[in-house]
Amino acid sequence: MKNILIINGPNLNLLGKREPEIYGGRTFENYLSTLQQQFSEQAKIEYFQSNSEGEIIDKLHGTGFTADAIILNAGGYTHTSVAIADAISAITTPVIEVHISNVFAREKFRHHSFLSPVCKGTICGFGLDSYRLAILSVM
Amino acid sequence: MKNILIINGPNLNLLGKREPEIYGGRTFENYLSTLQQQFSEQAKIEYFQSNSEGEIIDKLHGTGFTADAIILNAGGYTHTSVAIADAISAITTPVIEVHISNVFAREKFRHHSFLSPVCKGTICGFGLDSYRLAILSVM
Amino acid sequence: MKNILIINGPNLNLLGKREPEIYGGRTFENYLSTLQQQFSEQAKIEYFQSNSEGEIIDKLHGTGFTADAIILNAGGYTHTSVAIADAISAITTPVIEVHISNVFAREKFRHHSFLSPVCKGTICGFGLDSYRLAILSVM
Amino acid sequence: MKNILIINGPNLNLLGKREPEIYGGRTFENYLSTLQQQFSEQAKIEYFQSNSEGEIIDKLHGTGFTADAIILNAGGYTHTSVAIADAISAITTPVIEVHISNVFAREKFRHHSFLSPVCKGTICGFGLDSYRLAILSVM
Amino acid sequence: MKNILIINGPNLNLLGKREPEIYGGRTFENYLSTLQQQFSEQAKIEYFQSNSEGEIIDKLHGTGFTADAIILNAGGYTHTSVAIADAISAITTPVIEVHISNVFAREKFRHHSFLSPVCKGTICGFGLDSYRLAILSVM
Amino acid sequence: MKNILIINGPNLNLLGKREPEIYGGRTFENYLSTLQQQFSEQAKIEYFQSNSEGEIIDKLHGTGFTADAIILNAGGYTHTSVAIADAISAITTPVIEVHISNVFAREKFRHHSFLSPVCKGTICGFGLDSYRLAILSVM
Amino acid sequence: MKNILIINGPNLNLLGKREPEIYGGRTFENYLSTLQQQFSEQAKIEYFQSNSEGEIIDKLHGTGFTADAIILNAGGYTHTSVAIADAISAITTPVIEVHISNVFAREKFRHHSFLSPVCKGTICGFGLDSYRLAILSVM
Amino acid sequence: MKNILIINGPNLNLLGKREPEIYGGRTFENYLSTLQQQFSEQAKIEYFQSNSEGEIIDKLHGTGFTADAIILNAGGYTHTSVAIADAISAITTPVIEVHISNVFAREKFRHHSFLSPVCKGTICGFGLDSYRLAILSVM
Amino acid sequence: MKNILIINGPNLNLLGKREPEIYGGRTFENYLSTLQQQFSEQAKIEYFQSNSEGEIIDKLHGTGFTADAIILNAGGYTHTSVAIADAISAITTPVIEVHISNVFAREKFRHHSFLSPVCKGTICGFGLDSYRLAILSVM
Amino acid sequence: MKNILIINGPNLNLLGKREPEIYGGRTFENYLSTLQQQFSEQAKIEYFQSNSEGEIIDKLHGTGFTADAIILNAGGYTHTSVAIADAISAITTPVIEVHISNVFAREKFRHHSFLSPVCKGTICGFGLDSYRLAILSVM
Amino acid sequence: MKNILIINGPNLNLLGKREPEIYGGRTFENYLSTLQQQFSEQAKIEYFQSNSEGEIIDKLHGTGFTADAIILNAGGYTHTSVAIADAISAITTPVIEVHISNVFAREKFRHHSFLSPVCKGTICGFGLDSYRLAILSVM
Amino acid sequence: MKNILIINGPNLNLLGKREPEIYGGRTFENYLSTLQQQFSEQAKIEYFQSNSEGEIIDKLHGTGFTADAIILNAGGYTHTSVAIADAISAITTPVIEVHISNVFAREKFRHHSFLSPVCKGTICGFGLDSYRLAILSVM
Repeated sequence: MKNILIINGPNLNLLGKREPEIYGGRTFENYLSTLQQQFSEQAKIEYFQSNSEGEIIDKLHGTGFTADAIILNAGGYTHTSVAIADAISAITTPVIEVHISNVFAREKFRHHSFLSPVCKGTICGFGLDSYRLAILSVM
Repeated sequence: MKNILIINGPNLNLLGKREPEIYGGRTFENYLSTLQQQFSEQAKIEYFQSNSEGEIIDKLHGTGFTADAIILNAGGYTHTSVAIADAISAITTPVIEVHISNVFAREKFRHHSFLSPVCKGTICGFGLDSYRLAILSVM
Repeated sequence: MKNILIINGPNLNLLGKREPEIYGGRTFENYLSTLQQQFSEQAKIEYFQSNSEGEIIDKLHGTGFTADAIILNAGGYTHTSVAIADAISAITTPVIEVHISNVFAREKFRHHSFLSPVCKGTICGFGLDSYRLAILSVM
Repeated sequence: MKNILIINGPNLNLLGKREPEIYGGRTFENYLSTLQQQFSEQAKIEYFQSNSEGEIIDKLHGTGFTADAIILNAGGYTHTSVAIADAISAITTPVIEVHISNVFAREKFRHHSFLSPVCKGTICGFGLDSYRLAILSVM
Repeated sequence: MKNILIINGPNLNLLGKREPEIYGGRTFENYLSTLQQQFSEQAKIEYFQSNSEGEIIDKLHGTGFTADAIILNAGGYTHTSVAIADAISAITTPVIEVHISNVFAREKFRHHSFLSPVCKGTICGFGLDSYRLAILSVM
Repeated sequence: MKNILIINGPNLNLLGKREPEIYGGRTFENYLSTLQQQFSEQAKIEYFQSNSEGEIIDKLHGTGFTADAIILNAGGYTHTSVAIADAISAITTPVIEVHISNVFAREKFRHHSFLSPVCKGTICGFGLDSYRLAILSVM
Repeated sequence: MKNILIINGPNLNLLGKREPEIYGGRTFENYLSTLQQQFSEQAKIEYFQSNSEGEIIDKLHGTGFTADAIILNAGGYTHTSVAIADAISAITTPVIEVHISNVFAREKFRHHSFLSPVCKGTICGFGLDSYRLAILSVM
Repeated sequence: MKNILIINGPNLNLLGKREPEIYGGRTFENYLSTLQQQFSEQAKIEYFQSNSEGEIIDKLHGTGFTADAIILNAGGYTHTSVAIADAISAITTPVIEVHISNVFAREKFRHHSFLSPVCKGTICGFGLDSYRLAILSVM
Repeated sequence: MKNILIINGPNLNLLGKREPEIYGGRTFENYLSTLQQQFSEQAKIEYFQSNSEGEIIDKLHGTGFTADAIILNAGGYTHTSVAIADAISAITTPVIEVHISNVFAREKFRHHSFLSPVCKGTICGFGLDSYRLAILSVM
Repeated sequence: MKNILIINGPNLNLLGKREPEIYGGRTFENYLSTLQQQFSEQAKIEYFQSNSEGEIIDKLHGTGFTADAIILNAGGYTHTSVAIADAISAITTPVIEVHISNVFAREKFRHHSFLSPVCKGTICGFGLDSYRLAILSVM
Repeated sequence: MKNILIINGPNLNLLGKREPEIYGGRTFENYLSTLQQQFSEQAKIEYFQSNSEGEIIDKLHGTGFTADAIILNAGGYTHTSVAIADAISAITTPVIEVHISNVFAREKFRHHSFLSPVCKGTICGFGLDSYRLAILSVM
Repeated sequence: MKNILIINGPNLNLLGKREPEIYGGRTFENYLSTLQQQFSEQAKIEYFQSNSEGEIIDKLHGTGFTADAIILNAGGYTHTSVAIADAISAITTPVIEVHISNVFAREKFRHHSFLSPVCKGTICGFGLDSYRLAILSVM
């Protein structure tokens, strides 16, 4: 059994409600329970969401030396946060960056990620399925 | 009666105390009570201030599906926060961006706003009066 | 009674006819008479439109030492005219920059204004209502 | 049974031989047969490698209206080829971009991909396992 | 006796644990007690650490009108936070920027500091000893 | 019979006199009469030249809702005029951009045209013959 | 009788099939036969298409010292190929650059052409009719 | 006797009235009569001022094949007008660029002149005396 | 006896015929036989030319693990090909970059080489003699 | 009698010998004696030339508190020397920047001067006569 | 006893005389003797000043293999000298970069230092006290 | 017998002592005597080294009209000195630029050379052997 933490950053709490043409119409909690069932024998999947950069860093510190993998969708902080990138470097658990939408097909400021260079890998553009693929990457 | 929320971002709690040559010598609370009186028959004006990017996002989520308008002076986060811009896109209440000073007459990094493209409109440079004009824009 | 001059720059004579999805379907003259009525007791509102950069400068010179306020929508010259910016600096009447559309949500070359740093303030994105707010800013 | 085509671009024929500290010491052919066995009941996985930009485009055209998915690691052409990007846009089969290494942790010119905006999604940094995840994305 | 506040920003709570080849293997608390002893007759040295941009601003506001000096290592926020820079401008206590590592010898995005122009001075590259030098600068 | 207007911008009145190694030694009027004869049964070709940006805009407005096509060589304004580009967007007659010289083989500032994105098409580098080709494009 | 060669670059073999909203729904072969008939008494029009940069260069070399004109739509190579530009400089037959769509109204990377400075002229935005105009330019 | 034309561009009609801390408190007409007297035996000095780019071009065309020298202070058009630069190239009279203030000590957008490369020479920073030096340059 | 391969990229097959003012009037084959004679006792010099990026990569792979040195003039691909650079990194034979002309004295886009950082060294500007010097570098 | 120092920077000792098509065929010493004669009753003109940045700074320090004016042609150091610019700021004698050629019509790196913002004024493009005009500027 | 060398670069010989609002009104020699007294028992402090880049390099070479520390204020060369940076890399004595003023609060070209990445650390903005702190850093 | 001058710029006097992993462990004097012996019948090879930009210019002037060739390794001045580039243009002896290391594989600021465009050719990356190749280039 692997310990996996999914961290969702700002605005992802609104999933299902926010711009459904980009992010789809399903809540993350709903999707999460499907995921947990699907991997119930291989992994314990915990979930954390925050709109605060500092709380995301706190969570990375808190689990980043014991979890087997962290799956991080840092939302808008992806493109602006050196501090989260430093937190990823500072911990020992590998972090996998995911995005629901294809960020490279959107505004130019979404094409650069401070996090990608310090993550193990990046998965983007597969809708909510990006999270499942991230879990599969550590199976 | 319209429900209007004013959100002030970082350092605006110091108004009246901070660099009075740029921001004037009056506290926002003092100004706010004048505003509330002036519009007492047309609008219920609530006020929220925070120095935390995450709390501003939380507040936008919390009122952004029910209020009639949000007036946002995001202070320094104006120029750096993709996450607040995403929150504005994610909610349905229109957001009006205001600035006390003429940001275009100041340092170059203040000329770009991540928020402007996703706000309904922008009002800047009129001192505290920028807030009154923003309220008038929804009357 | 305040003396207020509204100056509209290039292509604004086509208002109501030009790209109505961006600028709306009402002529400026029609809107102006409403404005003049609404403020008939507080302000004398004059109007000038020209497609010529030089004529706009001439008008700024001609009224810029006596009017109480000038409301300027310089259209495309906003983004290219150092000469109009210099005219605004050279006169003593305060100038308020207005835009009908949210210029920051459009092409990148519309995000920079040579005029903003030398104007008193900027109001943009409220449709024709931007002009009314500009007048209210000097009331 | 899904028809899946894997296209490898320039220098990937040297896998196992080329810079093993970046790309690992296993040949792609060896890895491919494992993949084919693993998915033998769900997918027919074909493989194509070429060092020629034109041949990659020809292959995309040839299979891009009939295959269920194309997995593309375009190697160095990722960063320079508008023509391959146009080919991806021109076909109807969805294309998934994969990279073995974490391209964002390498030289700056590898951070931009002409292909990402026109692909369905991107998976990078998981070593050869990136290909498996790409297959799983269409299961 | 001078009142001096040391503020450490994101990830500095991991000191001793995080990338020791860059930041050294000693915890800040351990170092702090040495500092406090060394200056016990000249200064009262308080310490605050937070991973949250907003809390750092709150702390700057809270002590920035009474302390004799603030020594600030804002970590990753150094390079991205207009809001902290504004807080430094807004208070009256002089702020000294410190960095443990030589930021100019690291990634390019670490070469720019929003804070330097509004701080009294900058000390960087001396390991933990940067803090001692900062204290000496106000003796 | 089609109604076609040719508009020449600044300095094109000097054709035949100005830098003949770039623009050739023939006056535009002389060339125009040849054109008019050549197409006398298919098109009524009118001609307008001005060195004033505003007058070019006025002319575009005046004929841009009735003519069948406008052929525009905006000379130096090509590279600097947002206002003319806006005029082209505002009218309904299609505009064809022409240049006598190959602007892409000259100074770098001539490589960018504000007009190209809003014109129907561009023809450049064929000497005076660029105008004939533009007329043929609407035949 | 003039000898004219039309060279089409990558993805133009998909014309009629590829993104018809940009490129139209007609195959090039179909259009070509119309062109050949139309000019049957004035020109012998040959046609070559390749998705390979090298083959386009080979063809330019092979006919570039004997043909009267070459009409080149280099597709995506327009924006990336120094080698094709060098081939155009190296031969003596004049080359005319054509584009079906208005490249200046599309993505920014399509606004720069390595080929324009070394071609005789450029015609773009007229749909397939761009080719007819190019032929007319040498009549 | 040399024929010399001085052309002043936008806002220079306000000299003496406009920002005297930059441009001084003397009208140009007053200064001009001193100049004319001083050089009364060597030169006939004519004067033209316009706020219109097009009129400046017209004047350059009108005198640019007969005058001995043109002294041009194009004001704000210096930094934005390709059309005036083209007019200077198109005429045969040498043009001398002058500026009253030291443009290089002011805003960054004033550091670039489209006119300098096509003028004979540039004189700037000597106040109104820049004009006298320009006249002396042709004596 | 050393095994040396000379690879010439696009357009170098036209040497002697192409722009002789830049590249000289001698064919490469003619020059090559002189070279082969001159070094007949020390080296076996093979020659390969292709206009295709893919074929150059194939050739680098084919000889890049056995030859003693490869001398590469990649022509226009020098400035655009990440794929060839990757091929050079992937092989073990050292590659020496040569250019006939002084690329730094030509167009700006020729000043950057993707190949230089991964080659052993660079020799440029000596005409055909650059090849002889490259051979001497491995003697 | 005014004390004027002319300082010539690197390579100006070769005047008359160096690239005469740009700088003319006359030595500076020869020109200087003419100047000295011409102004013999108004000014004592001293001359200093050095190819060393440090010696130019030493000379500026040595005379920059007593001379009435310094005329400086810093040659190549114009575009690269912060140290000379600092020296000009540090002294009290006004410095006039001169250039023989029109630097704005030459290579792009010659368009920027570190010295212009701290000099009183700039005169360039008049050949050796630039020095005479500079002297006249202080008469 | 430590051997410490202070090297001051261009214009620092004018300290006390040069722009006292930035650099203060005290000569360096005067300050130095205070420093030498203060540290008389711990360090032998030598001093060298030169306006010449070459002499600074010579001095770095001469002492850079024997001194315990070099404190370097390279003045304007800080921002332009690769050669001094190379000298610092080439020697074995650690070099500490100091600046009197807060360079980050001044002109943009002073924000970049070629020296910082190769120095041990940087201290700036503390006035002359920056030198004392630099000495303390090696105690 | 040819007269050849080798000029070495800043820090090259430390060869053998400075960063041997980049520059090797042999002194230049030792290498020079080998070179002089090897070419003793064909060339008189003189040597000059200086850390001063001005002295390098003086030396170029002194020998640049009589020597047969100058071989120049300008060290750090390569990337910053317009003045040395101007000296190379001013003299008539051809100059060959050499570098010991592969500058293109090092820091970005070493990728640009002000000297390359005005030198006959460039040889870099062959260690000390670059000098021998440069001599061979004039044999």
